[in-house]
Amino acid sequence: MTGIRIIEVSPRDGLQNEAVAVPTGLKANFVSALLQSGLSEIEVSSFVSPKWVPQLGDIAELWSMLPSGGTYSALVPNEKGLDRAVELGVDRIAVFTAASDAFTKKNINMTVDESLEVFARIRSLHKGFIRGYVSTIFECPYAGLIDPVQVRRVVDRLFEIGVNEVSLGDTIGVGVPTEVKKLVNELSDLPKEKVVWHFHDTRGTAIANVSTALDLGYSSFDSSAAGLGGCPYAKGAGGNLATEDLVYFAERMGLRTGADLVALSQASLPILEVLGKAPFAKAQVAVLAS
Amino acid sequence: MTGIRIIEVSPRDGLQNEAVAVPTGLKANFVSALLQSGLSEIEVSSFVSPKWVPQLGDIAELWSMLPSGGTYSALVPNEKGLDRAVELGVDRIAVFTAASDAFTKKNINMTVDESLEVFARIRSLHKGFIRGYVSTIFECPYAGLIDPVQVRRVVDRLFEIGVNEVSLGDTIGVGVPTEVKKLVNELSDLPKEKVVWHFHDTRGTAIANVSTALDLGYSSFDSSAAGLGGCPYAKGAGGNLATEDLVYFAERMGLRTGADLVALSQASLPILEVLGKAPFAKAQVAVLAS
Repeated sequence: MTGIRIIEVSPRDGLQNEAVAVPTGLKANFVSALLQSGLSEIEVSSFVSPKWVPQLGDIAELWSMLPSGGTYSALVPNEKGLDRAVELGVDRIAVFTAASDAFTKKNINMTVDESLEVFARIRSLHKGFIRGYVSTIFECPYAGLIDPVQVRRVVDRLFEIGVNEVSLGDTIGVGVPTEVKKLVNELSDLPKEKVVWHFHDTRGTAIANVSTALDLGYSSFDSSAAGLGGCPYAKGAGGNLATEDLVYFAERMGLRTGADLVALSQASLPILEVLGKAPFAKAQVAVLAS
Repeated sequence: MTGIRIIEVSPRDGLQNEAVAVPTGLKANFVSALLQSGLSEIEVSSFVSPKWVPQLGDIAELWSMLPSGGTYSALVPNEKGLDRAVELGVDRIAVFTAASDAFTKKNINMTVDESLEVFARIRSLHKGFIRGYVSTIFECPYAGLIDPVQVRRVVDRLFEIGVNEVSLGDTIGVGVPTEVKKLVNELSDLPKEKVVWHFHDTRGTAIANVSTALDLGYSSFDSSAAGLGGCPYAKGAGGNLATEDLVYFAERMGLRTGADLVALSQASLPILEVLGKAPFAKAQVAVLAS
């Protein structure tokens, strides 16, 4: 392995829970800065109803402003969302489920199986690239610990439906390397390039989990510039793994990321300012202070 | 391995660089709260001259206020410091050097070899337990990357002198697992129970390094409650590995620490308040928010 693949999720996953409305032009500049820092795959927004997530209601306008050269994707929650994606000519989409019914019920008001039925219809209508998110891979905040067999079942169904890759999420950021190993034990016969790890850093374990996944032969990771989003707790508590921390770690391990850490550390500053947050991602803070 | 050993360094290493004077009674309460949370080995202060580090000038008063039941130690920078330690009846001391002359020159105004000569005299005068700190094990801010052979040389000299254990510090928090492995390769014939790892989390890599050290058979780690200290950069940037993050990680990995994470997360709150800092250690923030 000489490099890793990073899927940058901050414009969607990082902003979706923010109450402060970020102007569309600022989002477009943010995507531009991320792209210029060397990140090429960026999930930019979601076709979720603006009623539920007003922050991402400007996807049509944003999409028209995206700089060329990036590989952009957007979340599609249902068939109505797919219609809008088709209208805009969005080729690369993501769908969202979990390893536990309790979680999908609360989040998308469907059981896991019901969500998979929706995805099968989406797959039949959409010829482009589809990523399948699987949340709560280690533990569900409502149902407790998750058996790796549950994750495998959902992953198998997603690949049967025909998704192009899965992104496995430690949604509440509880996992440690022993759990990564146990889950990998269950998944090891699947093609590694189709499995992306989406670790959260809520309790500071994300980079250790990345390190373990690297040891086990995986090389694709989701992360969010400045650690934006995925933050169920107080200000400054990490949620999403910060792309800066991932890039620092990988490059120091001798693995190319394609990203420039200094440019990346600056890319999110205008967004952080609008959100009223000081930088808190460790590698970003270290870079900005140096 | 069924558990890990934690050496809590916050009262000394965590406070030494803080400009706000922390009242001695508050420090004693802090040590008490750490002890009650289940941490038994605590480095409480330093016999450095109050001229250089006024924050730790109250060591005599603090020492007299320490609750019984803990295994306490203090840093001894030189023979003058040793005299004061002997006066107070401090049995367990630590001495401080580095893998690079450039670093010791700036910090203690001696070469590494000169510091080792001082330690030899201290050893001959002091019959109790001596820990030898070795800083800049991966990289020195003045001399650049450190060859593991340099670290081995200093470690060998320390053991020849007769220190009881060494604590190996990634002082500027740059290291990653590949570097841990390379260094372990150089140290693997030494007794593992005499080698303590002192990782800094400045760029978010400390827990990944702990994980790697555990894989390689080591089980002793320094850490600092609330991630206090060791912070060369802006507010919120991690310096010292937070004990909360270490305890969360170890316990979730199935390794006993003896510490109660909830009590530990609360132990530093009065100190943080005096210092005007909000909690920023990830596992601590998560615990306090739950």
